[in-house]
Parts: sequence; C-alpha cells; structure tokens
Amino acid sequence: MPVEVHPSAVVGPDVLLGEGSVIGPFVVISGQVELGIGTIIESHCSISGDRENPTTIGPGSTVRSHSCIYPGVVVGPGFESGHHVTIRSGSLIGSNVSIGTMSDIQGNCEIGDFTHLHSNVHVCQGSKIGKFCWLFPGVIMTNDPRPPSSISTGPTVEDEVVLTVNVTLMPGVLVRKGTVALPGAVIARDTTEDSLHFGPRGRQLDSVKHIRMPSSGTQAYPWIVRFGEGEYPSQNLESQRKKRH
Amino acid sequence: MPVEVHPSAVVGPDVLLGEGSVIGPFVVISGQVELGIGTIIESHCSISGDRENPTTIGPGSTVRSHSCIYPGVVVGPGFESGHHVTIRSGSLIGSNVSIGTMSDIQGNCEIGDFTHLHSNVHVCQGSKIGKFCWLFPGVIMTNDPRPPSSISTGPTVEDEVVLTVNVTLMPGVLVRKGTVALPGAVIARDTTEDSLHFGPRGRQLDSVKHIRMPSSGTQAYPWIVRFGEGEYPSQNLESQRKKRH
Amino acid sequence: MPVEVHPSAVVGPDVLLGEGSVIGPFVVISGQVELGIGTIIESHCSISGDRENPTTIGPGSTVRSHSCIYPGVVVGPGFESGHHVTIRSGSLIGSNVSIGTMSDIQGNCEIGDFTHLHSNVHVCQGSKIGKFCWLFPGVIMTNDPRPPSSISTGPTVEDEVVLTVNVTLMPGVLVRKGTVALPGAVIARDTTEDSLHFGPRGRQLDSVKHIRMPSSGTQAYPWIVRFGEGEYPSQNLESQRKKRH
Repeated sequence: MPVEVHPSAVVGPDVLLGEGSVIGPFVVISGQVELGIGTIIESHCSISGDRENPTTIGPGSTVRSHSCIYPGVVVGPGFESGHHVTIRSGSLIGSNVSIGTMSDIQGNCEIGDFTHLHSNVHVCQGSKIGKFCWLFPGVIMTNDPRPPSSISTGPTVEDEVVLTVNVTLMPGVLVRKGTVALPGAVIARDTTEDSLHFGPRGRQLDSVKHIRMPSSGTQAYPWIVRFGEGEYPSQNLESQRKKRH
Repeated sequence: MPVEVHPSAVVGPDVLLGEGSVIGPFVVISGQVELGIGTIIESHCSISGDRENPTTIGPGSTVRSHSCIYPGVVVGPGFESGHHVTIRSGSLIGSNVSIGTMSDIQGNCEIGDFTHLHSNVHVCQGSKIGKFCWLFPGVIMTNDPRPPSSISTGPTVEDEVVLTVNVTLMPGVLVRKGTVALPGAVIARDTTEDSLHFGPRGRQLDSVKHIRMPSSGTQAYPWIVRFGEGEYPSQNLESQRKKRH
Repeated sequence: MPVEVHPSAVVGPDVLLGEGSVIGPFVVISGQVELGIGTIIESHCSISGDRENPTTIGPGSTVRSHSCIYPGVVVGPGFESGHHVTIRSGSLIGSNVSIGTMSDIQGNCEIGDFTHLHSNVHVCQGSKIGKFCWLFPGVIMTNDPRPPSSISTGPTVEDEVVLTVNVTLMPGVLVRKGTVALPGAVIARDTTEDSLHFGPRGRQLDSVKHIRMPSSGTQAYPWIVRFGEGEYPSQNLESQRKKRH
C-alpha cells in the first residue's frame, strides 16, 4: 500500500513512513521518526525525533489532530490518541494504549499495554502505569513532595487499576493491583490490592469485590473479570485472567 | 458579501460556505460541511462531515483557533467557541451557545439555546443540557456508573442551572431547573428545583432563593431573574421569565 | 544573526522580528507584534496584535506549539510557554515566567517575574499574581462571586506563594506572601503570610515554616529559602531573600 502524505505536510528527510501510512494536512514530522504500517497522523500534529532520541510509533496507530510528540517517545502498536495531546521525551508506551484528548504526558514515564487514559489526564515524570488500567478525565499524578523542589518521585500504578474522574495521586504512592479510586479521591498512601478509596484523604472504604453491577448484580470489580470479548483481544485477556485467579 | 478563504486553507469540494464567511490560515474543512452566513473559522481548525453525518454551523458563528469539529455536529446560529475545543459526532447545539477554550464535547449530546460553557468543560456522551445554563471551568459530566463498562447514562441538566468550577455530575443524575452547585460539588443524586449544593457528597444547603447580591442585596438566584438586557436578547429572556414566574 | 522564518508561516507586514528569531511551520503572526532577539515561535502558533493593542514578547523567549496569543499581551524576556496555551488581551507578564501546556490566561491580569505556572492553570480576568510563585496543574482562579454576573473581582496572589494541584481561589481573595495551599484546597478567605491551607473550606493548618524537607530535615517553606543557585538567576534571588529575612 502506498504512503499518503498531504502536500501541505512538512516531513523531514530522516522520517520513515510505514506502508499505507497517512499524513494529514499541516502536519510537521522532523528528525529521526519512524511510523509503523498503516499509521494515521491527523492534521496539525507535530512529531519530532533526534539521533540520540528517535521516536517510533507502532503499526496501526492513530494520532489525532493537534497533537505534539517529542523526541525519544516509543509507542507500541495499535495506539490511539485524542486531540491536543502532548507526549514528552522518554515516554514508553505499550501496545494498544489509548490517550484521550488534551492528556499531558510529561515524559520519562511508562504506560503499560491495553491501558486507557481518557481526556485530560496529567501524567507526571517518573510515573509508571501498568497494564489494563483506566484513568478518567481530570486525573492528576504528582511527583514532588515539597513543590517546588528537585525531588521527583512519580507514583506507581499497578495493573487493572481504575482511577475515576479528578483523582489525584500524591508523590511516590504505590497504587496496588485492582485498586479503584472514586471521583475526587486524593491517594496519599500506598493502597492494598483491590481496595476502594474515597475523598480528600483517600480513605479506604471497602474491597472493590463487594461492588455489584447495577442490573445483573454480578461482581463489578476488579473490572477485568467482567470483560469477555470484544473490546480487548481475548488471548491477552485470557492470559491476564489466568494469572490473577 | 464575498467569502474570504485564506489561500493556505484546505476546503473540500462539498463544503458550502455562507455569504461573508471567513476561513483562516491552515484551516481544514472536508466532506459535507455547511457554514452559515457570516461565520468565521479561525486558523488551524479542523472541521469535517460525511454523507450520513453532515455538519452544519449556523449563521453568525465564530469558531476560534485550533478547534476540531467532527461529522454529524449540528450547531445553531450565533455560536461561539474558544480555542482548542473538540466537538464530536452527534452533538446537537442550540442557538447562541458558547463553548469555552479546551472544552471537550464527547458527542451524542444536546446543549440548549443560550447556554454557556466556560473553559475546560467535559461533556460526556448521552448528556442533555438545557437552555440558559452556565457551566464553569473544570466541570465534568460522567456517564458510566461502573467504569469501565458499556453502560452509558449521561446526566440531564435542566434550564437555568449553574454549575460552578470543578463540579462533577455523576452518571444519570437529573439536575433540576435552577439548581446551583458550589465549587467542587459532586452531584450524585437528583436535585430539586432551585436547590443549592456543596461538597464531595453534593449535600443540599438551602434554596438558591436566599442568596443575595453582595452590594444591592437583591435576590441572586435563579440567576435569570437578574438579567434585564444586554447580554441576552431581551425577547427570549422575557418569554423565559414569564414562563417561570 | 539572521531571522529564520519557515516558508509556510504567515507573517504580516507590521510584525517586527528580533535578530535570530525562529518562526516555525504553519505559524500565523499578524498585526502589530514585536518579538525580541532570539525568540522561538514553534509550529502552529497564532499570535496577533493591533494598533491600539500591540503585542510584544521579550528576547530569549520560547512559545511552544499550538499556542495562541491575543493583541495587547506584553511578555517580558526569557518567557517559556508549553503547548496549546491561550493568552488573551491585557495580560502583563514579567520576566522569566513560564506558563505550562494548556494553561488558559483569560486576560486583563498580571503575572510577576520568575513565576511558574505548570500545565492547565486557569487565570481569570482581574487576577494579580506576584513574583516567584508556583501554580501547579489544575489550579483555577475565579472572579465572579455570583456566577454569572457582571461583578469581576480577581484574586491577588502575593510573592512566593505555592498553589499545588487543583487548588481553587475564590473571587477577590488575597493570598498573602508565602502561603502554601495543599492539593484540592479551596481558598475563600484572605490568608495570612506563610500559612498552610487544606481542604474544601481552605482550613488553615499551620505555618508553612514547620514543614521540613523529607531527607535533610531542613525548613521547606517558604520555598525560596531553599533555592541557592541554578534554577533562578542568583542575583535576583539574593535580593529577594534579603528583602524577606
């Protein structure tokens, strides 16, 4: 399949475009950048790499309009971004990740496979986010316990964690596997597995395992027990399930 | 009046531009899009439609720079957007609406006439927002009671509601006419008409009717009793007032 | 040093470009705009001025991609913006200020020298922010005590204040020198110097002077006592210190 580059796009000589990739109007791609097969870069994006910090985006990815990706960003296959997204240097992003509109990835961080960030999530430097996590609009991760200082200790979010709208993670916290944080919760201490948190002090309410689905009454969390097929590739999901239960 | 299209803009063959419309530099408009008379599209915007989902923007509208509007968006006359706004498919927007900088309209939603969204308001799928409402920066509307799930039940906001900064609406809530929510309130249960809400549990404090203006001491809410002329077309406002009182 | 203007950029005839300035692809600069020596405007920015409201940006500044600057903005030397920043008319910005990605400066406001706004800070009209302040992601300043009304009374933030993530300032508050507000605090009343605030009512916890650095145990706040060199020009910092202690 041929590559399709809009005539207005500015694409540097060192950029490698995979087969079938599509570059929209007014896109700027410069330096050492490699785009996988079938990757779509929508209008008004800016993507750059340099020799020490090449940027690669895996096959089958879509970067939506007005997004900005720095040198030294590595993105796996099947990536999807929203609009007006910023991803800074040193962001290592797994496969099948999505990052919503206006999310702000500050760099030097990791985001695991199949993790979804909805709109307007702020990921600070030094963060580690596991696989199969969901972060909702307004989530902010922080890394400086005495702002402003030169201390930087990003939070760690293990697999299958759900951070709902406006949750704040304080510097250096460990959010253990399967934790669910309710809207506006501020998590300042390490959580236990599958725990549920609420409020400005992040008080632990319960185990997530007691939450039921509204209509069926089946177990709602950890959320991954509910997903059979469709949304996630079943092979990956199956192996994840077996590991857990 | 002639149409004014900046030579750098990319405008597709099926786009209909109303008389006197102005298209700025580096704008992309593609597919079935119709712009009303005198509409201004500022620089770096991206607007698209398709045959099944045409997009129309009413006369006298201004879309500010770096905004992104999807296929299947219907916007009434006198619309104003801020910068870096995203409006997704299936958004039905009334007349004389404004949507502030970085607001994120997720689609399949309705926004009534004369409603104002300030900066950075997040409107989820399935939301219905009435007329003469005001939503301030950081308001987030949510639709999934067990995130992530396939349940989607957006909030309903009736006419003349005021949601101040950082208010969160939980899935499916009905925010009745004239409700005021104070900064940071989380509204998880249906409200009564003209009620005032506060805090992380959205506790009802009082009727809004007891709040006074700081200097004059006159009744402050429902806010519409205070507006005589100027800001809103008086005819519309009068009929709204009569309906109410 | 020669000026470097990307051939795709649209630069009006009244724009003055300082020596060595660099204008990126798809930038629009129109009307009365003056850029200082060595200023960099990254791709997809939009900057404008007019005869009554010229815009000037001081030497050695960097405006990152997709930012939008209105007529009547005055920015001192050594400015740095993030991406997708909006700065509206009547913003007076001192020297060595930084304003992070997606911050939204609503105009008719002042920001003092050496002040840093991180990502997604909302500065309302009528705000005054002093020198050496730090505002972190999600901070919102408000100016209307009865929204929506025509009253506009922006907050005043004195020097060396630290507002951490998601802090809200209510209309007209005076945040005195050295105040620190913890994550999510809502400040509705004037603060005293060097006071520490917490929670949805902005309760005063303590003096900031009792907070220690985690490892060294030295005094952490007011933050400026900790900074010797490097990050800030030492001469300025020294004079600031002497004034204080």
